[in-house]
Parts: sequence; C-alpha cells; structure tokens
Amino acid sequence: MEFKISKDFIAHIEQLISENKEQELNDLLQDVHFADIAEIMDELQSHEASYIFNTLDSEKTAEILLELDDEVREKILKNLTAKEIAEELDELSTDDAADIIAELSKEKKEQVISELEDVEHAKDIVDLLRYDEDSAGGLMAKELVKVNENWNVLTCVKEMRAQAENVTRVHSIYVVDDEGRLKGRLSLKDLLTTSTKTPISEVYIPKVDYVKVDTENVEVARIMQKYDLEAIPVVDELGRLVGRVTIDDIVDVIKEEADKDYQLAAGISQDVEADDSILELTKARLPWLVLALFGGFISVKVLGLFDAAMKEHAELFFFIPLIAAMAGNVGVQSSAIVVQGIANNTLNGSLWKRLVKEFSLSLFNGLILGIILFLGCYFLLSSDIKVAFTVTTALLAVIIVASFLGTFIPITLDKYGIDPALATGPFITTSNDICGILIYFFIAKAMLGF
Amino acid sequence: MEFKISKDFIAHIEQLISENKEQELNDLLQDVHFADIAEIMDELQSHEASYIFNTLDSEKTAEILLELDDEVREKILKNLTAKEIAEELDELSTDDAADIIAELSKEKKEQVISELEDVEHAKDIVDLLRYDEDSAGGLMAKELVKVNENWNVLTCVKEMRAQAENVTRVHSIYVVDDEGRLKGRLSLKDLLTTSTKTPISEVYIPKVDYVKVDTENVEVARIMQKYDLEAIPVVDELGRLVGRVTIDDIVDVIKEEADKDYQLAAGISQDVEADDSILELTKARLPWLVLALFGGFISVKVLGLFDAAMKEHAELFFFIPLIAAMAGNVGVQSSAIVVQGIANNTLNGSLWKRLVKEFSLSLFNGLILGIILFLGCYFLLSSDIKVAFTVTTALLAVIIVASFLGTFIPITLDKYGIDPALATGPFITTSNDICGILIYFFIAKAMLGF
Repeated sequence: MEFKISKDFIAHIEQLISENKEQELNDLLQDVHFADIAEIMDELQSHEASYIFNTLDSEKTAEILLELDDEVREKILKNLTAKEIAEELDELSTDDAADIIAELSKEKKEQVISELEDVEHAKDIVDLLRYDEDSAGGLMAKELVKVNENWNVLTCVKEMRAQAENVTRVHSIYVVDDEGRLKGRLSLKDLLTTSTKTPISEVYIPKVDYVKVDTENVEVARIMQKYDLEAIPVVDELGRLVGRVTIDDIVDVIKEEADKDYQLAAGISQDVEADDSILELTKARLPWLVLALFGGFISVKVLGLFDAAMKEHAELFFFIPLIAAMAGNVGVQSSAIVVQGIANNTLNGSLWKRLVKEFSLSLFNGLILGIILFLGCYFLLSSDIKVAFTVTTALLAVIIVASFLGTFIPITLDKYGIDPALATGPFITTSNDICGILIYFFIAKAMLGF
Repeated sequence: MEFKISKDFIAHIEQLISENKEQELNDLLQDVHFADIAEIMDELQSHEASYIFNTLDSEKTAEILLELDDEVREKILKNLTAKEIAEELDELSTDDAADIIAELSKEKKEQVISELEDVEHAKDIVDLLRYDEDSAGGLMAKELVKVNENWNVLTCVKEMRAQAENVTRVHSIYVVDDEGRLKGRLSLKDLLTTSTKTPISEVYIPKVDYVKVDTENVEVARIMQKYDLEAIPVVDELGRLVGRVTIDDIVDVIKEEADKDYQLAAGISQDVEADDSILELTKARLPWLVLALFGGFISVKVLGLFDAAMKEHAELFFFIPLIAAMAGNVGVQSSAIVVQGIANNTLNGSLWKRLVKEFSLSLFNGLILGIILFLGCYFLLSSDIKVAFTVTTALLAVIIVASFLGTFIPITLDKYGIDPALATGPFITTSNDICGILIYFFIAKAMLGF
C-alpha cells in the first residue's frame, strides 16, 4: 500500500536534519520507497535535500536521483564530484544512466564517463548518448536477454540466468543469428515447458515486432499501444538487435505528449510546470500573449472601419464580446476534436467528408444557439427586432465559419508536417475573433445599412 | 515491423468481399495482426466488417472484438447470437470478457453468461461485473499466478506451469496464506535461482504494493507510475488476493484521463471522438456554447452601462476584443498550469504562495505587453495619448485579475472535490471576458471621465 507523506512527517525530517541526527534519519527512511523519498526531497529546501542524499546509501540514492524534479536533481548533481556521480550511475540501468549524463555539462559528462567502473556498462551508456532523445534509440535500454538461434534450450537457460542478473524485468528472450541480427523471440513460458535438448531454432517465434533506432518515440508508443506490447526490440540499420524499449518508458512518452497538447491548447508552448521559475514560465506563455495582442491590434483596425455604425446602431458594439467569444469557443472545440483524432489515429475519411460533417454539426448547433440569442435579444436585452435578427444571422454565419477554420487549419497543418496542436488555443481564438468580427459587421452593414 | 494499411489493400479487401471470395480473404488476412484487422474493419461499411468477422476463426475474432471502435463492435455484437458471443468470450481473458459483456443489454448479458463453456471462467467474469468500471476492481483481471506460502519451490514451479497456461504475461508470482490473503511476492528470477526444496516462506518478498478493489482507477495509475510497477495485485476488504491490474490497462486510463482534461479545456464535456454522431457531439459541445452565450448576454448588459462613453471616446469600444482576448488567454494559461499540476501531483506549497507567484508573473508579462500595447496604440493605431494610457493601464489590471482567477478557481474547485479541469476552457474565458470588460470600462471612466 502506498505510503502517505504527511506534513508532520516532513516536519519531523526537517527537525532531524537541523539537529544533525544522521542515524535517526537513516532509520526513519529505511523502509520508505525511493519514489517517496524523492517526493519528500522535492518539498524540502535544497540544503536539506542534499543532506538526506548524503545520508543514504548509493543503492537507494541512484534510484532517487531518477525520480527527483529536474531542478532538485540539477542542484544535487552540482554538489557531487564526477566520481560520486559515476558511482550512482553504476547502480542504474543504461538508459536511466544515459538520461542523467545527458543533463550534465559537456566537461563534466566526459569526467563522469571516464570514472565509470564497469567498462561494458560505460560503453553501453556512451552508445546510448549518440541517439536523439526523441527516438527509439533515445528511449531504449541496452539491458536485454538474447540467445543465439544455434543454441539449445539448456544453453539458453544457463545464458539467460547469467544475463538476467542485469535485467530488472525479463519480458521476452530475443533470438539473434551469429551476426547479432534479430531473428525472433522466445517466450519464457515456452522455455519452461520445452525439453532442454531442443534447439532454439525449432522453438522460437520468427514473427516479432520491432522498431528501428531512429523511429520517433511517439511512433514507438503508438505501435506498442496498438499491439499491446510490454517491450519491443530495437534494431540498427543492419537489422542487428541493439536494445529494447519497455512499456514504462512509453507511459512517460504518452504522458508527455498529452501534456504538451494540453499546454498548446492553453497557449503554453514549452514543457513547463507550475513550479518552474517565472522566467521559464514567461518564455512559454508570453509569445502566445504577444500573438493575441497583435490579433487585438487587427481587431481594433477592423472595428475602426465600421465606426459609421456607431451613430445609428451603437447597440451593435455591445455584442462584440458575445460574437468573439462564440467564434473562439466553437473554433477551439472543432480543432480540439480534430487534433485529438489525429493524435489517436482515429480520424478516418477525407477532409471533404469531415468538413461536410462539421458544417451539419455547426448548422445544427448554430440554429439552437441562434434561437436562444434571438429570444434573449428580444426579451432580455430589449433590442430592436431588426438588430436582434441581424445579430442572430451573424452568429449563425460566425459559428459555421469558425468550425470550418477549426477543422481545416489543424488538418492542413498536419498534412504539411506541422504539429496540428499548434492550431488550437490562442492561434485559433485570435484568428476566429478577427474573422468573427468582420463577418458580424459585414452582415450588419448589409442588413441594416450604415 | 508494423504493417501499413494502404488504400489499395482496403480496396482489394472490399473487392474480395463483393465477389464473395471467402477463402482468398482468409488467406490474405492470415498473417495480419488482429489490431490491424480491427483497424481495417473500422474503415469498412458495417456489412463488410461483419463479412470479415464471420470469415475468420474465433481465436482471432475474439481479439479483434476488443480492438474495434465501440460503434462497430456494437453492430457486430448485434448480429451475433448469445451462444456465438459466449464462444468469443471464452477465448478472452476475464477482464476483457467482462468489458464486452458490460456493453450488452441486460437480457443479452444473462443469456451470454449462461452460454459460457468454462464454469470457472464464467464465475470470474460475473465476479468482475460487480465492480465499478472506474475502480481497481473494474480494471483487474482474475488471471494471475499465486502460490501458497506453505509450499516449496518445486511444488510452486509445478503449480505455476499449470496456472501460467491461462495467464498471458507472468509479471509476478503472488504468495498467499491458507485464507487466500496476500502475503508477498516471488520474482521469477529468484525462483530460477533457488534450490527446489526451499520453502516459499523463506524466499518470498513480504513487501508488496497492492491496491484495494475500490481504489479509483486514476489512483491505481498514479501508484503504478510512481513506483514503476508493471502489475499490481488487488485485494478485497479482507485482504484476500482477488486479481491484478497490468500496466497496459493503466496506459488506457492515463490516455483517457489526459484526453478528458484536454477536451474539457476545449469546452467538450464528454468523451467523444471525431467520428461520433452529430447528436453525441452536440451533447458534448452545445452546453458549453450555451454557457458562453449567456456570458455574452451579461457582457452586452455590462457594455450598455457604459454607453455614455460612446460620444466622447468611441475608440474605447474598438479595444473590447483585444481586452477580452487577453483576459481569456491569460486566464486559460494560468488555469491550465494549475490543473496540470494538480493532475500530476506536482503542485507544492500553499495557495497563497501560488497566488503571489502568479501575481509576479502576470505583473512581469503585463508590463511587457503593456509597453507593446502603448507603443502600438500610439504609433500603429494613432490613438489619443490619453486613450493609449487608459487602455494600457486597463490591460495590466485585466491581466493580473485574469491570472488570479485562473489560479484561484481550479485550486478552489479541487479543494471542494470538483474536477478542476472544469475551470479551464469556456468557463474561465467567459468569466474573464466579463470581468475584463468591467475592469476596462471602470478604469476608463475613472481616467477619462464620461
């Protein structure tokens, strides 16, 4: 069962630190999971976090390092020598070690690598550092269990036991030929139930899903989800088995991708967290606000074109926020559904069919909203019936155009290889604001004449 | 490597169906993964999809059923008798079978259950149907490998082999006492490397994470992610082991949760897809638009209060969309970051501290945007310097208030147990529109006097 981190518990830890009671602290944290210790350290001040880190033994600290918030980890790594960092990394699997090394400065990176004890481990880590972090190569670990197709089950089991020492979780046993090329896989279950003298070539399953080192991480995630895989082997350009990606790495990819889309929809362009610095948050947020501000300039100009309306139909100006808000909301709804469809690969059929559907949908919604607006104008806001009719017609037109743009823009962006999620949020609301106001006043001008 | 579904391939299949070439179709789909066949069927018309379904053998069709879009599955199930459905379900694991049964009508449900061949399997499925689908009980499968603490390694390996027949993936071997209560776990690796006479009670790991049947699915996902688990045992109220949840189910939970938040941020209140019917899409979208429309009514009323300004400072009205858009965008940014922080459990510190930070951030961003706006007003839009100054001051005030509301509302909702994601999207933009306009005209009235 999960350990609950209470305020009292943290206060107790802070007190032990301030009283320099190392032994008691160690005893207290003895049975606490490293993920929980990391969470506690994230809450503490940095000198307190460092104190805890130095108190614990390196088997635990290595795992804690992985779980810490980026900022906290950075501070702790700064206080460690290259040799100390290397000792932590020796405890970790290659992919996790490579992730941590990748965060270091170039100089420290080299120092740390030269301090790694286990030469094979070091080689594997250096190898992993070559790959783009958003590719299968960047996700994979070198640790896996592989056997030669020419062995028999007995040799295989022996080799497996030796190899399994370094592998936390054995999902599949991969079968390779003498050149190291991936040939297939063996299931643990088959191995348990086959006679020990059977040659591997007779029992292995030659059909095995795999990805290449340069396959994009989101693509790896998609394949693993689709085929319900818990691990997938990674091969190089020559088809040689070089690593494997496990489902827990994919969970992170899925989470990050979803977070990114969500943030883009809200007008936040980098992966930021609430606890990041004001400068980082500004970098992620300000560009979108500037975009919206420039959109605002255009709308000021557009409204200026229609100032003649002010004398006779001042009331029209009171409806601007309503029209703009409806245009923005409809546009975001349409684009969000398309963006999600693209991301989940559930968007079937042509653009044309989709636009027709969106047209019917917005016509249907627009008519209902139009009726409410008309009644509202007439009874609630006691507008002139001609104005009520004008505003209602404009709303219908604005909703249809907004849903068109919301559908069309992300599909088109995706077609040209641009992330469609960019279309949601401020971009779509700003362009729909301007379009909406233009349509509104054009219709008003045509119907009321000013 | 992944199989790519081309248009040609689908056209070829459609032709085979229209020519009624069952054997050729079967040969063609022989080596195609069930997930791919499901994807093909989703693209076809429903009578074609049914044709394919009837051609294939039930080992494959059962898995296909699981992967189909809800609508397509529903149509196919409608065409099958209770006995046929039961045959499909006999091929599936208990959790998947329960998920499909749960979609049937009450009457058909009972018929199908009575037709299930394997009594143990049927019992397990019925048992699973009791649980809320959003709980650990609703996620778990009954298939697992468990051994008694009183056995020795040899008995254990024998039992395991027998049990493993029904379990696709053995993640952990769970250890229970005579009453079936979860005592701990065994790793496959330990089992491979321990002498066969050792009693289990000596080798098992007594510390094991678990969840209760009524733990919420998002909580299960959080725990499994945090502790990096690939499977977690589920216990009932008495601590008895009743099932296990595997990471692939959790991937779905994470995906759904992220999709839900994203849709709420875009003003879509139900789990809909681009391919859902217009009626379903309307149900998910229209309520938010009606909310925005009523917000629009209020803004019309608010603007009506300030119509005196129109005579002397008509220009002020041209800035309404700019002010409203900035208020909306800032509000959504702030609330999105808070909502994500709450969802990912990374929000440390008090509400007060967060508001102070958000204040500094919005002051900083607001000043930069204010300078751009002032220069823009003066040079681009050639406004009166007094108006430029008024609009700039208002913008600063509006940004600060919007970011306050964006931070305050989701945190408060969360405190009272309401999904904070409800605060993002139309709700926050609408309330910020109204607040923004009020603030803008109050400041304008104070500074320009009308």
